[in-house]
Amino acid sequence: MAALARSVLVIGSNQGIGLELVRQLAASPCPPQHIFATCRDPKGLRGKALQELAAQHPSIKLVQLDTVNLPSIRGAVRAVGSHLKDQGLNLLINNAGVSLHATLRSLDSQKMLSAFADRQPSPTLLSLPQKFLLLLEKAVKGTGKEGLSCSKAAAINVSTKLVSIGLCLRVPQAPMYPYRASKAAQNMVTRCMAAELQDKGILCTAIHPGWVKTDTGTEKVPVMVEHSVRGILTVPASLSQDTSGAFLDWEGNSLPW
Amino acid sequence: MAALARSVLVIGSNQGIGLELVRQLAASPCPPQHIFATCRDPKGLRGKALQELAAQHPSIKLVQLDTVNLPSIRGAVRAVGSHLKDQGLNLLINNAGVSLHATLRSLDSQKMLSAFADRQPSPTLLSLPQKFLLLLEKAVKGTGKEGLSCSKAAAINVSTKLVSIGLCLRVPQAPMYPYRASKAAQNMVTRCMAAELQDKGILCTAIHPGWVKTDTGTEKVPVMVEHSVRGILTVPASLSQDTSGAFLDWEGNSLPW
Repeated sequence: MAALARSVLVIGSNQGIGLELVRQLAASPCPPQHIFATCRDPKGLRGKALQELAAQHPSIKLVQLDTVNLPSIRGAVRAVGSHLKDQGLNLLINNAGVSLHATLRSLDSQKMLSAFADRQPSPTLLSLPQKFLLLLEKAVKGTGKEGLSCSKAAAINVSTKLVSIGLCLRVPQAPMYPYRASKAAQNMVTRCMAAELQDKGILCTAIHPGWVKTDTGTEKVPVMVEHSVRGILTVPASLSQDTSGAFLDWEGNSLPW
Repeated sequence: MAALARSVLVIGSNQGIGLELVRQLAASPCPPQHIFATCRDPKGLRGKALQELAAQHPSIKLVQLDTVNLPSIRGAVRAVGSHLKDQGLNLLINNAGVSLHATLRSLDSQKMLSAFADRQPSPTLLSLPQKFLLLLEKAVKGTGKEGLSCSKAAAINVSTKLVSIGLCLRVPQAPMYPYRASKAAQNMVTRCMAAELQDKGILCTAIHPGWVKTDTGTEKVPVMVEHSVRGILTVPASLSQDTSGAFLDWEGNSLPW
């Protein structure tokens, strides 16, 4: 069994889905050689679980990355790049994000602005995979593989079914205008990137992890985080040029945008 | 032939599609009793075409509205409300917006932020129809009609096929990340509003006007603005609860989100 990818970067990995992604990647029978786990404060209290995990698995490297701070993002790109040297980054999993609730009645400009500017997914976050583009392009040259795959070069945005515009009428109970609007914008960026980068050998996909029990999850919880992350990590292995630009759930089923 | 609606508000009407909407509404065989035409500077040079139109049609009332300025929006709601008194507003057509170009390579946080915050469609604009909610609710009470229709109470967001996430792979040539992301967010808001407001008797729909030749249009131009606006004004008459929350083109065909 081959590794999913030689190098993987997980953005937003100090808790919930991100932390479990790092845990399962490191514990897999054929783990990636490099697992970069980012969070805002990897040396502080909020990075404690990640520190413990890294102590057990030398493949895990903690990287400081504040997704709304451009110098911090640039610093993270440099740190990952200098670690990988000429090989580039194969797989970026962007899991940063928060829920921001507001009904139509309670919605104000500030809440809407917060979803895009002050908090994740911010305008910076919306284009976060773009910052790592040079490292992904380097990986394309490094592998010499044909077609698109996560073992070559890929950016996966962790999205959610809740932000499918097409499914919106079926789940109208969630009063999350700012969250849904900003994540729909992120889905658009995923799709535009897939269109633009397929000729360069880079795959881009959005994945819905299921309604998982994490700090940010507030919906019904039919899927446990371990189970969901197993799904998230199974799907990428099957991705190709046919599924670049797709919106898939954790079992690989296609979702409407 | 009945009027499309007793009262119509067109947001962003000093040029292009908005101006033509106001022109065709006023010149129709059975025009609305009240046509509110908003722009940033209705008394200035940029409102000249609108002033000339209003001089010919007493049904047209010019209203100052800067879509990124909350006090200005509130002032517009008050002005329209006091004009309509107890009757409320039947149809809001939100046509504000600009194109903001950026390739993935040239994309930076500032450009992305600009699309959401400094310019239209801004976080304020994203929730613009919400500001007029009380006037739409008043119209629901006033008409006593069953079901959903534009002659009762409706908000139509003028969107574009270019911001369909689903169609994105087929038109990858347009390097418009910030524009596409912010308008996808607006489509999500339209859809959420449709879900939330259908029980209150208010219809919400997004309409693609075709690639029209206006100041903001840069694509191929198969549709002239007069032709397209005739379409935009034909579609609302056929809208009902079945098409609330839909994304339709100017001929009434359904588009993927």
